[in-house]
Amino acid sequence: MFSITEIEEAYARIKPYIIETPLFRMPTLDPYLGCEVYLKAENMQITGAFKLRGALNRALSLSSEARSNGLVCASSGNHGRGIAYAAKMLGAKATVVMPYTAPEVKVLAIKALGAKVVQCETSCRFDVAEQICNQQGATLIPPYDDEFVMAGQGTAGLEIAKQCPEIDAVIVPVSGGGLISGVSIALKETSSTMKVYGAEPAALPRYTMSLQAGKPTQVPYRQTLADALVSQKPGNKCFPCVQKYVDQVVPVSDTFLLKGMKLLLMEGKILAEPSGCIGIAAVLQGQLSFQKKEKVCFLISGGSVGIQQLAALEPLDF
Amino acid sequence: MFSITEIEEAYARIKPYIIETPLFRMPTLDPYLGCEVYLKAENMQITGAFKLRGALNRALSLSSEARSNGLVCASSGNHGRGIAYAAKMLGAKATVVMPYTAPEVKVLAIKALGAKVVQCETSCRFDVAEQICNQQGATLIPPYDDEFVMAGQGTAGLEIAKQCPEIDAVIVPVSGGGLISGVSIALKETSSTMKVYGAEPAALPRYTMSLQAGKPTQVPYRQTLADALVSQKPGNKCFPCVQKYVDQVVPVSDTFLLKGMKLLLMEGKILAEPSGCIGIAAVLQGQLSFQKKEKVCFLISGGSVGIQQLAALEPLDF
Repeated sequence: MFSITEIEEAYARIKPYIIETPLFRMPTLDPYLGCEVYLKAENMQITGAFKLRGALNRALSLSSEARSNGLVCASSGNHGRGIAYAAKMLGAKATVVMPYTAPEVKVLAIKALGAKVVQCETSCRFDVAEQICNQQGATLIPPYDDEFVMAGQGTAGLEIAKQCPEIDAVIVPVSGGGLISGVSIALKETSSTMKVYGAEPAALPRYTMSLQAGKPTQVPYRQTLADALVSQKPGNKCFPCVQKYVDQVVPVSDTFLLKGMKLLLMEGKILAEPSGCIGIAAVLQGQLSFQKKEKVCFLISGGSVGIQQLAALEPLDF
Repeated sequence: MFSITEIEEAYARIKPYIIETPLFRMPTLDPYLGCEVYLKAENMQITGAFKLRGALNRALSLSSEARSNGLVCASSGNHGRGIAYAAKMLGAKATVVMPYTAPEVKVLAIKALGAKVVQCETSCRFDVAEQICNQQGATLIPPYDDEFVMAGQGTAGLEIAKQCPEIDAVIVPVSGGGLISGVSIALKETSSTMKVYGAEPAALPRYTMSLQAGKPTQVPYRQTLADALVSQKPGNKCFPCVQKYVDQVVPVSDTFLLKGMKLLLMEGKILAEPSGCIGIAAVLQGQLSFQKKEKVCFLISGGSVGIQQLAALEPLDF
């Protein structure tokens, strides 16, 4: 396991390329979520998601020879867009292996950055990516189970600690666990009192199951509207961080994901993809609850969503 | 004409009831707008628009006897919602006269606050509101042509000057001129170098025409997608402020309003109503342009928009 030092090094490396995204108080959401609401808007990050942080930290840590042989990744979209952007910035080639179920808006954004997109079944994406690496001598950049990637994602936590040190709790979307590993190390090594919670799709409760079992445990693949949170098993490097640093991980249903997305859009005026709203959804569903005066920061992990996807929100209450 | 003193007094009066809305840097929009982009997010104000500031300042300045006889206003929506909210906070009754063309989302939001809504033709709304006042002995609160209202709106300018004093220029949506009057007094009395620009719908170029004529001039009523910017004539009290303090007012076409709205939503991840995007639209249309290093703050005046209104954005480029 790494420490805040690696996260600080990552920050020094990637800072010229990323945005320090805003962290703002959003009192209009307080009555709905029962606490003092803060948002860390990684949906406003370049490429539309926090994933750029880890992708850049890994790419910048490669030798220039390795970079010149190209970057490959398997991704439901946001990591791939991060890799495609990092490759473009650093003059490298990128290939992104995506599931057929990835939203069109994400596929198009990656192609627009000049990367090659290969699509396959969700469960085959890592095997296909490895094959391509073997054929081309390119470097595979994992979406989460890599300390450079995890430390890169952790820079979002460094920013939270700096921008608003009085935060009491942070809620982080969880898939393989790269983001929450980095963020929880950054926050827990900065503050002795801050709580860190994870929220994952109820359809793919890989952390809920793994934390119960005490080891990384694979769950069967099931569809979820949280198209950025589709990993079936915690990363082997991520799991011990979550075990050690995260206070609780809760499962959230798809219905509440959409309610959370609608609440954030209509009352908060912020557009995020369903996965990015899972922390808000967790509170709406009653999976997490807070005191009225607690300052709770919802890490909004991504915002890649097409206008045609918004029609589904119209009939919902929140 | 009033001065920054009245705006500071207004701020002291209304501060307990409003949000200090975030002002943030939005570098993802820089390539589209050709400058360093900052947003003042009044779409995140309680009631979804800056209008609450002026409405509250006027309502709080009335005697409690006057307030108990009720508040009445004519409004395309946002001023009405501000009045309805102010009335609810202060235990008064409110009646809002709205044009038939007001979006349903605004009508519903006002009713939800317990105010009575009366609908009529756009051009009759002030006459109808006056009639109701005469019948009920209630107080009419004008949407812009009133120094308390103008000073209240100016508090958004005080916040800009405090939150980001290094801003070079601010672009403000313009209708009757209440917001830009207050904001330009606040900014120009704080900084000798800051520029203030206005943007108004090309369909209703009341300031473009009036500034040319040298006096408040009525323009014929025409439909515009900027449903919050439908006044046909500058306010008599507003016009001299705009003449004195505003560097330029530019007309913006409806097509660019929607392009601006789509850009802000898809790349900035911020939802605003078409009127709130008119500053961004002005730059997209080439009506205003800036140096690459200029720090330009777009005042996003309101965010009341229904999900069904977003479908119109789908086919557009920006």
